[in-house]
Amino acid sequence: MEARLDAPTVDLLAVLAYGELTAFERLASDARLAPSVADKVALATMAAAEFDHFRRLRDHLAAAGVDPEAAMEPFVRPLDTFHDSTEPNDWLEGLIKAYVGDGLATDFYREVAGSLRDDRARALVLDVLADTGQAQFVVDRVTEAIRAQPAVAGRLALWGRRLVGEALIQAQMVAVDRDALTELLVGRGGLGGITGLLNHLTDNHSARMAAMGLQA
Amino acid sequence: MEARLDAPTVDLLAVLAYGELTAFERLASDARLAPSVADKVALATMAAAEFDHFRRLRDHLAAAGVDPEAAMEPFVRPLDTFHDSTEPNDWLEGLIKAYVGDGLATDFYREVAGSLRDDRARALVLDVLADTGQAQFVVDRVTEAIRAQPAVAGRLALWGRRLVGEALIQAQMVAVDRDALTELLVGRGGLGGITGLLNHLTDNHSARMAAMGLQA
Repeated sequence: MEARLDAPTVDLLAVLAYGELTAFERLASDARLAPSVADKVALATMAAAEFDHFRRLRDHLAAAGVDPEAAMEPFVRPLDTFHDSTEPNDWLEGLIKAYVGDGLATDFYREVAGSLRDDRARALVLDVLADTGQAQFVVDRVTEAIRAQPAVAGRLALWGRRLVGEALIQAQMVAVDRDALTELLVGRGGLGGITGLLNHLTDNHSARMAAMGLQA
Repeated sequence: MEARLDAPTVDLLAVLAYGELTAFERLASDARLAPSVADKVALATMAAAEFDHFRRLRDHLAAAGVDPEAAMEPFVRPLDTFHDSTEPNDWLEGLIKAYVGDGLATDFYREVAGSLRDDRARALVLDVLADTGQAQFVVDRVTEAIRAQPAVAGRLALWGRRLVGEALIQAQMVAVDRDALTELLVGRGGLGGITGLLNHLTDNHSARMAAMGLQA
């Protein structure tokens, strides 16, 4: 029997778990848009990795005596809404969503995980976040597409901006609703800490867009 | 370096691999229709198992010096067409497709695998096919739904029939096109063997529909 987890830890593991589960199902769906079998396999491989992360987070919650489904429930609506409002229209939009969405989520969770009191939970979160590594595939594909057809860059830049906007809207809904999670954030240095986090997220987002040849 | 694989073995591993890959992506998409987080997790778990099968089959081909993507290419269109023509309209149709489609495929590949000359390839195919086991979950969910709302049984019975029909149409397209695979089938006992296989598939299909309380 493991030690009980405090409320912020349960919330963080649960929102990350449901985030990985929905990322899995959306990435796997988007694999249908792939122009070749090799591209399909690449996106499906990313999706399968997200499912593995989900499984590890869920098992950690369950081993600590927490009902994973009940813990994930408060995050179902904001995460589903995010995905419903950012359904990719084509393969490139799907790729960019995978890269930008994953990047934003990783930056955000990594910061918040720093405030977790539970060492094993923190280590698990950081370990799950470290295991991505398909980013180069996305950067290569998007860069090639823009080189072949420069006119798409404007639309894709807008798409990237929309992804961030929708993510921030849903993050704010969660913050209003989940005091435990918000405390983790504020505990990192009060409101000044939140401003710092937002600047950090925005800078990294701009760097990712630039890597694909897109304006943030 | 492994022994070279003969043409029927490459074809069988490749069609099964692409079948697992598409089953993965369609099941993961259908998980979005789940009425609860627990149901979503159950279908996503089935999907993740299919991806694991895909990976093992692909790795076996690659280790034998075969380009997996090139080997899968001839089967892209028939399998994609099958899925496009059997897109589930709701959660129950998705569940039945998972169960009926998986059952048909397993029966078919298990029969054909018996003709493979390569022992290790045959063992791999049988091992991948043996690892399903989520069938009871589907049977339970569909049975509950019919008990709660008996009127759906008629529609779902028609859906099951459509799944078999579309599967047979695509299987025939593959048979016409791929002599190597067809030889495997005919090698099992000539045209009489094919009739026997079809009877066997149909009997098992009827048993699966009956287990869900549906007419075949």
